[in-house]
Amino acid sequence: MVKANDNYLKLPGSYLFSTIGKKVREFSEANPDAKIIRLGIGDVTQPLAPSIIKALHSAVDEMGAKETFRGYAPDLGYEFLRNAIAENDYRARGCDISADEIFVSDGAKCDCSNIQEIFSLDNKIAVCDPVYPVYVDSNVMAGRAGSYDAKTETWSDVIYMPCTAENGFAPEIPEKTPDLIYLCFPNNPTGATIKKAQLQEWVDYANKVGAIILYDAAYEAYISESDVPHSIYECEGARTCAIELRSFSKNAGFTGVRLGFTVIPKELKAGDVALHPLWARRHGTKYNGAPYIIQRAGEAVYTPEGKEQLKAQVAYYMNNAKYIYEGLKSAGYTVSGGVNAPYIWLKTPGNMTSWEFFDFLLEKVNVVGTPGSGFGPSGEGYFRLTAFGTYENTVEAVDRIKRANI
Amino acid sequence: MVKANDNYLKLPGSYLFSTIGKKVREFSEANPDAKIIRLGIGDVTQPLAPSIIKALHSAVDEMGAKETFRGYAPDLGYEFLRNAIAENDYRARGCDISADEIFVSDGAKCDCSNIQEIFSLDNKIAVCDPVYPVYVDSNVMAGRAGSYDAKTETWSDVIYMPCTAENGFAPEIPEKTPDLIYLCFPNNPTGATIKKAQLQEWVDYANKVGAIILYDAAYEAYISESDVPHSIYECEGARTCAIELRSFSKNAGFTGVRLGFTVIPKELKAGDVALHPLWARRHGTKYNGAPYIIQRAGEAVYTPEGKEQLKAQVAYYMNNAKYIYEGLKSAGYTVSGGVNAPYIWLKTPGNMTSWEFFDFLLEKVNVVGTPGSGFGPSGEGYFRLTAFGTYENTVEAVDRIKRANI
Repeated sequence: MVKANDNYLKLPGSYLFSTIGKKVREFSEANPDAKIIRLGIGDVTQPLAPSIIKALHSAVDEMGAKETFRGYAPDLGYEFLRNAIAENDYRARGCDISADEIFVSDGAKCDCSNIQEIFSLDNKIAVCDPVYPVYVDSNVMAGRAGSYDAKTETWSDVIYMPCTAENGFAPEIPEKTPDLIYLCFPNNPTGATIKKAQLQEWVDYANKVGAIILYDAAYEAYISESDVPHSIYECEGARTCAIELRSFSKNAGFTGVRLGFTVIPKELKAGDVALHPLWARRHGTKYNGAPYIIQRAGEAVYTPEGKEQLKAQVAYYMNNAKYIYEGLKSAGYTVSGGVNAPYIWLKTPGNMTSWEFFDFLLEKVNVVGTPGSGFGPSGEGYFRLTAFGTYENTVEAVDRIKRANI
Repeated sequence: MVKANDNYLKLPGSYLFSTIGKKVREFSEANPDAKIIRLGIGDVTQPLAPSIIKALHSAVDEMGAKETFRGYAPDLGYEFLRNAIAENDYRARGCDISADEIFVSDGAKCDCSNIQEIFSLDNKIAVCDPVYPVYVDSNVMAGRAGSYDAKTETWSDVIYMPCTAENGFAPEIPEKTPDLIYLCFPNNPTGATIKKAQLQEWVDYANKVGAIILYDAAYEAYISESDVPHSIYECEGARTCAIELRSFSKNAGFTGVRLGFTVIPKELKAGDVALHPLWARRHGTKYNGAPYIIQRAGEAVYTPEGKEQLKAQVAYYMNNAKYIYEGLKSAGYTVSGGVNAPYIWLKTPGNMTSWEFFDFLLEKVNVVGTPGSGFGPSGEGYFRLTAFGTYENTVEAVDRIKRANI
């Protein structure tokens, strides 16, 4: 008799953003005239840059001609894209990463959730609290998280690293020793970053205890300060303890285009098992490559025109971030983030819970944000706003929140 | 101390098609003048049809304009595509499948390998022998296959259903009762099909013993005979025992475009657990949707022009299949398949092993096929040729094999 994977049944409720989507849909149906502004889910709003559109059209034409049609892509991605990534994202920053250590994929969310599959189910994971829910949920589904305590909203086998106002939203080395450490900087959801020296401490720690850091650098394009690392491979010794996950979603607006990549250095091992061949095997067996035309779009990101256009796009969103940050601060809110990241993290006013503030904003001013508690227990009493809206909507949303005058 | 998933280490050698790729690359480098013809991997060669190219260009333009740009896709796929699938692939054939039972993905290989994740690790799988390697390998990696016996080339916890000349390459109900039954018709690699009455027996059996059939119908567009089912949902009772996996790779040439879908009826359960919400949860947590422009390309497959153009494309490949089948038969080979499928399955001549015949063809006539033994022990002594080459190459390859006069 067939049985379901009952780890799935342990998951409390639905995925955070599905819940938000449902709430907004219901409110919208009940209030068809409400002009809702969405600063919740981290989805971009600016159209693809002209150089990317050009590359897409050109690749589509190639697919329509006999001489230039392409079938199955190479398992690990096309060399033209992996070379561009190695050169621009790594060697240009002094990081020793080669093209054949890069695995092209259809996005960082998939990589973030799939990467745990190459590790033993016995491994203990450590996550920041609050945290992007996918890290924890994918481990729950695999059976690595233990049991859920609804009261504390924590999993018995997960090591939580609180990120609070007290520690500047930067995690501290945990008391229990983890095997897999998920770090994300610039951080989702808090928008916080850590300096290179702080990240070096994590690298040294991981090498010392034999742990592996899964470093999610999806937001690196938003870094504006000079002493904030763009890649974990800027740290000495990272090649023996770190996997890096990257996305094209936020630096190039690819949320609906789907492209990302994972870096696994050749010498990275779990015990005496090299991890590069394991991930290659997973790619070869459970994946079939990103579309050719999308990989050409990715290549265009690294052209001089592409870089120029995307720099302007990132600046556009960071101008929104500044407007939110300063607007809410002037209105008396306690805010952080928004300087090296497209996320603003704010303390809910008047001791409201995160979901109370969510409902308040949705109902009173028709603005959608993300409840901090959806990212973990230490997110309770906080709220995330994203800078990915249009400028006009961002201004309108902030002004509405200010006028609500809580 | 971090540990690798040691299930990966149990896998013998590399993925079949990676091994073939390596052998061909090495031969090619040693013999740069050899004009190699590839009829091995099931990759298409015809360019995308004009109606698909048109849809792609149009969607690219939408992504470049502020008013029509699209970010994250709906978790389960865009409604325009799911409606087209439900209408054309199911309701038009009298199958009771609705749009919200369809999950759009980036291809059937991913779905085939990921689908096992929603089931318990205790479940026993049954596979045809020979079989598409991904079904078995994905279960090995998950830890569901037991231990490997190199002598028999079988896994201790997998139930094998031999498909041989004696049973017309159609599996028989196994003696041990499985929980998950992988079936693929038209079959990869043998090109065999089963009639609707035979498939109904499987459905009845699965419902009786409480098993679930994972039905891979990636090649349904190649069916030319009328009593061969295109979907398992043509059988009575399939909604309570079957998941169907479909691809756009072979009917529309999307191997490098990446699009597929999985159907999970709402009432399908494992014990008392409904599977539709589990797969939805996996989609929401470990996947982020197929690209918008690719989903629009998928929609174009179902337009009147798309259907017409793709019918011609399938006919082109089936003409190749006929040429291979008849050419080799006239040369004295024992051949099957090729009538309702783009694969020709042939007995190796002179008691050669499958890999001996692979090397022979590669070295003597520079033709690449796929060794039958790569698909399982009952494939030993067989060889697969695909009809997905160009007509010119197909003719040339068959003529070369005939001239080799083994």
